[in-house]
Amino acid sequence: MTLALAIHGGCGTLPKAEMTEAEWAQARSDLASALRAGWAILSKGGAAVDAVEAAVRVMEDSPHFNAGHGAAFNTEGEHELDASIMDGATLAAGAICGAKRIRNPITAAKALMLRGDPLLLAGPAADDFAEHEGVDTVANEHFSTERRRKNLASMKLREIVGTAAEASEAEKHGTVGAVACDAQGHLAAATSTGGYTNKPVGRVGDSPIIGAGTYARDGRCAVSGTGKGEYFIRYCVGHEIASLIAYKGLSLKAATDAVLAELSEHKVGAGLVAVGADGSIVAPYNTEGMYRGWVTEDGLIHVATHDHVELAGQA
Amino acid sequence: MTLALAIHGGCGTLPKAEMTEAEWAQARSDLASALRAGWAILSKGGAAVDAVEAAVRVMEDSPHFNAGHGAAFNTEGEHELDASIMDGATLAAGAICGAKRIRNPITAAKALMLRGDPLLLAGPAADDFAEHEGVDTVANEHFSTERRRKNLASMKLREIVGTAAEASEAEKHGTVGAVACDAQGHLAAATSTGGYTNKPVGRVGDSPIIGAGTYARDGRCAVSGTGKGEYFIRYCVGHEIASLIAYKGLSLKAATDAVLAELSEHKVGAGLVAVGADGSIVAPYNTEGMYRGWVTEDGLIHVATHDHVELAGQA
Repeated sequence: MTLALAIHGGCGTLPKAEMTEAEWAQARSDLASALRAGWAILSKGGAAVDAVEAAVRVMEDSPHFNAGHGAAFNTEGEHELDASIMDGATLAAGAICGAKRIRNPITAAKALMLRGDPLLLAGPAADDFAEHEGVDTVANEHFSTERRRKNLASMKLREIVGTAAEASEAEKHGTVGAVACDAQGHLAAATSTGGYTNKPVGRVGDSPIIGAGTYARDGRCAVSGTGKGEYFIRYCVGHEIASLIAYKGLSLKAATDAVLAELSEHKVGAGLVAVGADGSIVAPYNTEGMYRGWVTEDGLIHVATHDHVELAGQA
Repeated sequence: MTLALAIHGGCGTLPKAEMTEAEWAQARSDLASALRAGWAILSKGGAAVDAVEAAVRVMEDSPHFNAGHGAAFNTEGEHELDASIMDGATLAAGAICGAKRIRNPITAAKALMLRGDPLLLAGPAADDFAEHEGVDTVANEHFSTERRRKNLASMKLREIVGTAAEASEAEKHGTVGAVACDAQGHLAAATSTGGYTNKPVGRVGDSPIIGAGTYARDGRCAVSGTGKGEYFIRYCVGHEIASLIAYKGLSLKAATDAVLAELSEHKVGAGLVAVGADGSIVAPYNTEGMYRGWVTEDGLIHVATHDHVELAGQA
């Protein structure tokens, strides 16, 4: 079976001027680190579900992505974190939303999946569960970064002057995610996010919604999405791609292109990474850029933010 | 276009001895009232999405169903309510979870749908939204009934003596839902629940999850589910049925039977009501009974709890 691992760190316009060259290089380097963490598990015969967790954890800990440390601020200047994970072998899944104190939300989601029930925990109960399970908790300020604080100030200003709709995606959105196929041919997907800058308190997007932002089923595909979450929920993006493959006989590429085309029709900025039952990888997006990366069979790491794909050494 | 309206009030073993004959009659009568409320809208040319809201509101206000007044108690003796609604014409949707003060959660979900964004609000934010929109709010005790209090005591006892798994579905679960097809051929679905008795604080089931417990898309179907929510999420039940119809060419009956069969394989008690693009109705379940009802083209009301279907007059 072909091992496969792909990740994303959010899509959008990603204006080059928004960060220094050194910061862009650091973001690409963190993508490569995430891929190395996941690949280390896959290449030793580990499970896809462990690999996607490991890759997402690295991005949650990086300030460059809107998840964990580096998460967006909500309208009250706090961080509310959402995450989910799904094991395509068993359809087991775990998800949390509105967490405020879990350092790595994806690890809490996985712990919930392993416990088996409930599947989705919201709000303080998610934080309490993490604490009870020995998953690292931190103060909410742990997730704060200077860049996101500026994003919040900018969005508040745009709100006042009425230009919120014109804000760049980088100011607003962002999500991280990973998909994998392991040596046993099992698929898995994981997604984690801080939502979007200036989001209403209590807003839950697609990242913790199984079938929308995250979906995996052996023999079909694993998908992790990024973009305007409300549309990912309405279009059941993850499960829609799996259905087009299973019931309409589309290839992974044709299925993901079809769904992206439908979202584009509605002017929804969107991107995703997906892996097929055969270990094939796609990473399409309809925005100017998407933080992304994957490892090819030969163990070579590829990372990209815009069109140009960079080789980042051996995994 | 054939008008169609179907509702459910939860599935399970529904032991006859659990209620007096008068109580069973009252439950059937409340089902009929819910159908009348929805049909009054459809028969005047109203929208499917308004009809499902109206039908669900009646069941939320009835003590006989686990939604609104009559909702299950969580493990701390409080009520946390979940609901969602979807308009198949536009794929617009609204959902709330973990609400504690909204008298009719389905109406808050619809208000959120009409506002357009966000799609899903969790916890106190859902209550605050309802209050802000002028949707009726009440004290949490409004939802309490003597019967659910006994269910909680019984489940707490079962927890201690280790027989929680043997509890009847009636002691634990319950959900209400409605699906409709209007004169314009538009489909809609709505679902509302108190979850299950003794549920962990913060647990969110499938009822507020678009694609799982609730789904509607014109030309495909509208679905509202009841049963073990975690499995409805893992199997994306609503969207799975729509996909089998749209991409595999199955009939509504074949699609719902296939999904029920898959859930039965995993010993998941489950039921649902669904309406097809042509206004056809199905109300399958794999448990001993399901509170359910529908109106036929001639305006006749049908209600049932177990095998026997009763005529309850003209809508």
